[in-house]
Amino acid sequence: MSVTAADGFRAAGVAAGVKASGGLDVAMVVNDGPLSAAAGVFTSNRAKANPVLWSEQALAGGSARAVVLNSGGANCFTGAFGFQTTHQTAERAAERLGIGAIDVQVCSTGLIGVGDESFRAAVLRGVDLAADALAGAGGDAAAGLTSAQAIMTTDSVPKQAVARGDGFTVGGMAKGAGMLAPGLATMLVVLTTDAACTADVLDRALRAATRVTFDRLDSDGCMSTNDTVLLLASGASGVEPDEAALAAAVAAVCDDLARQLQGDAEGASHDIAIEVRHAATEDEAVVVARSVARSNLFKAAIFGNDPNWGRVLAAIGTTDASFDPYAVDVHFNGVRVCHAGEPDRPRDEVDLTPRATAIVIDLFAGEATATIRTNDLTHEYVHENSAYAS
Amino acid sequence: MSVTAADGFRAAGVAAGVKASGGLDVAMVVNDGPLSAAAGVFTSNRAKANPVLWSEQALAGGSARAVVLNSGGANCFTGAFGFQTTHQTAERAAERLGIGAIDVQVCSTGLIGVGDESFRAAVLRGVDLAADALAGAGGDAAAGLTSAQAIMTTDSVPKQAVARGDGFTVGGMAKGAGMLAPGLATMLVVLTTDAACTADVLDRALRAATRVTFDRLDSDGCMSTNDTVLLLASGASGVEPDEAALAAAVAAVCDDLARQLQGDAEGASHDIAIEVRHAATEDEAVVVARSVARSNLFKAAIFGNDPNWGRVLAAIGTTDASFDPYAVDVHFNGVRVCHAGEPDRPRDEVDLTPRATAIVIDLFAGEATATIRTNDLTHEYVHENSAYAS
Repeated sequence: MSVTAADGFRAAGVAAGVKASGGLDVAMVVNDGPLSAAAGVFTSNRAKANPVLWSEQALAGGSARAVVLNSGGANCFTGAFGFQTTHQTAERAAERLGIGAIDVQVCSTGLIGVGDESFRAAVLRGVDLAADALAGAGGDAAAGLTSAQAIMTTDSVPKQAVARGDGFTVGGMAKGAGMLAPGLATMLVVLTTDAACTADVLDRALRAATRVTFDRLDSDGCMSTNDTVLLLASGASGVEPDEAALAAAVAAVCDDLARQLQGDAEGASHDIAIEVRHAATEDEAVVVARSVARSNLFKAAIFGNDPNWGRVLAAIGTTDASFDPYAVDVHFNGVRVCHAGEPDRPRDEVDLTPRATAIVIDLFAGEATATIRTNDLTHEYVHENSAYAS
Repeated sequence: MSVTAADGFRAAGVAAGVKASGGLDVAMVVNDGPLSAAAGVFTSNRAKANPVLWSEQALAGGSARAVVLNSGGANCFTGAFGFQTTHQTAERAAERLGIGAIDVQVCSTGLIGVGDESFRAAVLRGVDLAADALAGAGGDAAAGLTSAQAIMTTDSVPKQAVARGDGFTVGGMAKGAGMLAPGLATMLVVLTTDAACTADVLDRALRAATRVTFDRLDSDGCMSTNDTVLLLASGASGVEPDEAALAAAVAAVCDDLARQLQGDAEGASHDIAIEVRHAATEDEAVVVARSVARSNLFKAAIFGNDPNWGRVLAAIGTTDASFDPYAVDVHFNGVRVCHAGEPDRPRDEVDLTPRATAIVIDLFAGEATATIRTNDLTHEYVHENSAYAS
């Protein structure tokens, strides 16, 4: 169920001294082919970290043979020295693997502004250690697990997923705890498949999947400088699936990982699905749902197990989506507390004690629907993000 | 220093049983003239409360002789019954004062969805009690104070201000603790002046003032359904100031009240001024500053006295304003911690223990500047908004 679940991939996670804690902090994933097709989606933040600046360019040809990932420092806003560190990381990995530096993707996560000489030395040491430790051909789960552990920051658990197609496999790992859709705790995802397909097919499958999974996870509204989602294909299965089958498997792994990210969001006590029904368009459904996901008052109410539907209506009223605020229904965990813009069932009928929380907003304005996943605003969130410099 | 500081105004605050606590909950401000010119600014939320729906229409003629305000219930999303309650409130006040209902502005604050028969009965009783208690002609501060107290919800202190012009006075009161620029704890502001001027002049002065004061206060990013700012002129001073002098006095009172709102924001431990310098346009300066004011990660860091400039750059990178993220300087309380997109002075040189916090972001992209005022994200904010249904 990991990044090594698909044939043709090896991986390793090592402790190289990037993290002061001495924990696992550098991971490497290697595609042994025969193919080296790859696709990627990167943060849309204009403040891009050095590894994003490198990787986005390096992936332009649709090929990648290895990914080096480190926790313990985002290497963002670290100047020309920081970019050289990323470049040297790719070159060191290429040298050890006998490939070109352009075929090495680099991902970093941790504190923005960290990227000095000791950081560089530790990351390069990590590349050497990981290259020595590579394992996993044939589905070695241990190698996948140490990789997933090496990219954790405030994550409390490693995140891995797998989906089996007809003769092919898609596996993956992810990290990220504070954020998303956006993500300042930084979301890094590596997906692997042994399917035989072109970079164009991978790119379409990846964009279709991220659009309805990671892009609809909005834990705290903060967009990272380092977000990266990569999909590498080895072709080792010898199976060339039809595009829909590949897309379905990629989407399943992305959905699984997105739910794991939501479930481990910093300080959260509720995993909230905000479903908007009968919107005029899917885009408007997303806009309306996101306006609720970004309301601190709504999120604090959920933490307090308070079905405060007034805060839902106040949030959606700030959008310019096509609906009548006085015609809207709002359900909290199956209880319709607001009907046609007026109080409906008593709020004490709603049980908000389970972690899984379902909000349904019916706009009666069309046929489109969309769901945004978010978390509540808790004391623990405030504590972690005031006490931990991430 | 209150809403009765200007000649020609009486006011009262009474306990009518709208609030379960038995505290002051209905206020009335009456303009005795000779003029009845008035202007108002209302929430831009499409989910507008019944009193906003009424008052915005009633003010179309640029005239108002009285304002009735209640705490203890927002009368929002309470259906046709709720709108009738607002209408009956205006009619009852008109009858008691011998004026037309169209000349009565109504403002409500409290929980959305509250507006049943007992609410209506209590508010109407409050109109009677307040009409009996009206006082303040000649600057009676006590009448102004009880009015300011009667509109408090989670506010911990009443908020009043005054500015003296050449022969005329502008006074005012405000409530609001959770919110703004937006405001879900609901911002209500009544300004009074004895200057002699037309509704058009009042309207221009009010819009110019709110644009750079209340509209640039963004405590928690949540826009209210009930926000209302009213400016009433009695002309009782007999002085017709030039427009710039009136505008300056109105702006001074708005600025004073906005700072009081910021200082009493729910659960806040820091009052943060985010100043953006050298932006290409003033609008872009506002957009950039607001992106930081709405970053929960930035706000939690300030609570933890952490000068986390990486979170500032990550926030401004999400805007489409014209600047180079790698050319930006960031100062925390006078210490330049980031220069040209790289680490500058050590973070331990920054002292974030004072409540007043100054963030300066220099974009080096033009000549415009703007400041957004916000607060930090604290345990107390989460507690108040999860425990108190507002």
